[in-house]
Amino acid sequence: MLAEFDLIQRYFTPLAQGHGVALGGGDDAALLTPATGQQLVVSVDTSVVNVHFPPDAPAKAIGHRALAVALSDLAAMGADSRWCLMALTLDQQRLGDDEVVSTWLQAFAQGFLALCDQHETTLVGGDVTSGSLSVGVTVMGEVPSGCALTRSGAQAGDVIAVTGALGGGGGGLALWQQGERDLTHPLLARYLLPVPRLAAGRALREIASSALDISDGLLADLTHLREASGVGAVLDADAIPLAEGLVDALGPQQALQAALSGGDDYELLVTVPQAHWAQAEAALAPLNVTLTAIGRCVEELGVSGVPTEAKTGWQHFVEQSASGRYRPGNRGGGAHE
Amino acid sequence: MLAEFDLIQRYFTPLAQGHGVALGGGDDAALLTPATGQQLVVSVDTSVVNVHFPPDAPAKAIGHRALAVALSDLAAMGADSRWCLMALTLDQQRLGDDEVVSTWLQAFAQGFLALCDQHETTLVGGDVTSGSLSVGVTVMGEVPSGCALTRSGAQAGDVIAVTGALGGGGGGLALWQQGERDLTHPLLARYLLPVPRLAAGRALREIASSALDISDGLLADLTHLREASGVGAVLDADAIPLAEGLVDALGPQQALQAALSGGDDYELLVTVPQAHWAQAEAALAPLNVTLTAIGRCVEELGVSGVPTEAKTGWQHFVEQSASGRYRPGNRGGGAHE
Repeated sequence: MLAEFDLIQRYFTPLAQGHGVALGGGDDAALLTPATGQQLVVSVDTSVVNVHFPPDAPAKAIGHRALAVALSDLAAMGADSRWCLMALTLDQQRLGDDEVVSTWLQAFAQGFLALCDQHETTLVGGDVTSGSLSVGVTVMGEVPSGCALTRSGAQAGDVIAVTGALGGGGGGLALWQQGERDLTHPLLARYLLPVPRLAAGRALREIASSALDISDGLLADLTHLREASGVGAVLDADAIPLAEGLVDALGPQQALQAALSGGDDYELLVTVPQAHWAQAEAALAPLNVTLTAIGRCVEELGVSGVPTEAKTGWQHFVEQSASGRYRPGNRGGGAHE
Repeated sequence: MLAEFDLIQRYFTPLAQGHGVALGGGDDAALLTPATGQQLVVSVDTSVVNVHFPPDAPAKAIGHRALAVALSDLAAMGADSRWCLMALTLDQQRLGDDEVVSTWLQAFAQGFLALCDQHETTLVGGDVTSGSLSVGVTVMGEVPSGCALTRSGAQAGDVIAVTGALGGGGGGLALWQQGERDLTHPLLARYLLPVPRLAAGRALREIASSALDISDGLLADLTHLREASGVGAVLDADAIPLAEGLVDALGPQQALQAALSGGDDYELLVTVPQAHWAQAEAALAPLNVTLTAIGRCVEELGVSGVPTEAKTGWQHFVEQSASGRYRPGNRGGGAHE
């Protein structure tokens, strides 16, 4: 078994060099030098086989996705991503012989490290253990002191908006369960290769009044935001931007349900004071990220403007699926989501 | 299933208050304020059922142990522990009904949080998922810039020393495999409730020339230190301090093998320049932690002074054990150990 672990070290040797890295891999812990005037932003996410991704997902996608969902939390805080730690639990017996394990690890590492590079994030440590496949990723970012976006700043009158388009996570999962395996399909790409909205989060950090990332589904995450801020919401269902190909794949009703409750979209849900709206749009334009107003915060608690059946419809759909084991948005009730 | 996750939130709501905690639980990420003039020290460790602890270990011990082994890495760097994140993957079906899950979680949280309190460490976030039982713990500490202990500073002539006593981890595992379940037994306590040597690490940080924690076993970890520092070692087998009750439990030969190769002791292995030795002893005396010289660094690479068969003897013993699945020191080959 040790031979495979040697392979892991080969693929995952943390980089000794990187922004603020005084000592990278190879010691008991990494040694980092935070920038002055910045606060640290830290979060952890675990991706478990059969819960967060299918057992036959490509290794490269598993690596990418595990990091992407963790980085998405930094995006929601408006942080700059700096460093990460990766704890991989690997089911070698299930994978097969050494060559299969080696190929799997190489692809997994490619997916993980390519996304690190894209976001100037240095892998500074990790742990590899044997067991049922799961990937725990701790991400660490920085934000100028006092400038982090939180869930609690929304006020009545603020515009409710989302980046990009919704429903791709749920739609992609549905397609995967139907046997689609082409990762260039836009919905499958949205499900298995989500894009953390770090640049958008940074651009909005002195403009938006609150933010979080959509992991559990728009309605569920909006509830988190409403409760933290003490506001209600009036949504315009027709305004919700749907992922490319979603209506074609699922039909209009299921497409809306996927957008409302499917989860795993990893877009940002933000509130923006009306006076800042033009500034917010302008901030995202050069990033090639759309920002779509989908409603407004109101004083009266609760949410209106969406079909009632949509609030729970998607969950039923997933439970009736062929697999019935892994499902989007089911990330448990940990302290950070 | 969600009901149990609500219970988890109840037991594990991270503390909003704590040293340097600007924003604790309940948002997408925690927001921390590092102290000026300090470097961050970060490490992650995953504890997996059947690999790092027996499936029937008490929940309180699993919680304590998962944090202790992570904190041990901060101790080895001479860091002050500040914050942690906990990613729990919980096998609810295996545990049983809601009441059993609730009782298990309460005990697990007690073990984890009591150790947090002992080391002034604030739990600032987490993630809870469903799957095969494992606990991923990210620890974050601080050390005055430039003062961290590393594995690479040992020089020929330095004294090689260990804190406390060795073999308790391996000896405790052997007893557990033989059916012993009394956690007040000193060896079982060493195995399931290890004590991270944070105070000793801090006390030695401007005295020792190198340090690491003994997780894989004295000989294996000494190899890591020797290779990082480019030195050899001459050990005095008779000087190695053996854990209380170890010789009685295993006999003299297996006791020495447990100390040399058993692993899971979480004592510190340090090198101290001869000129600093008296200072090192004096620094640990008020902490009630012994420091025992067990050898000396030499220029000639390799290690001598211990029985050759001991280098591999323990592993054979474990493989012949009744369980044969979980074993000490088998923490894989991740970047940080």
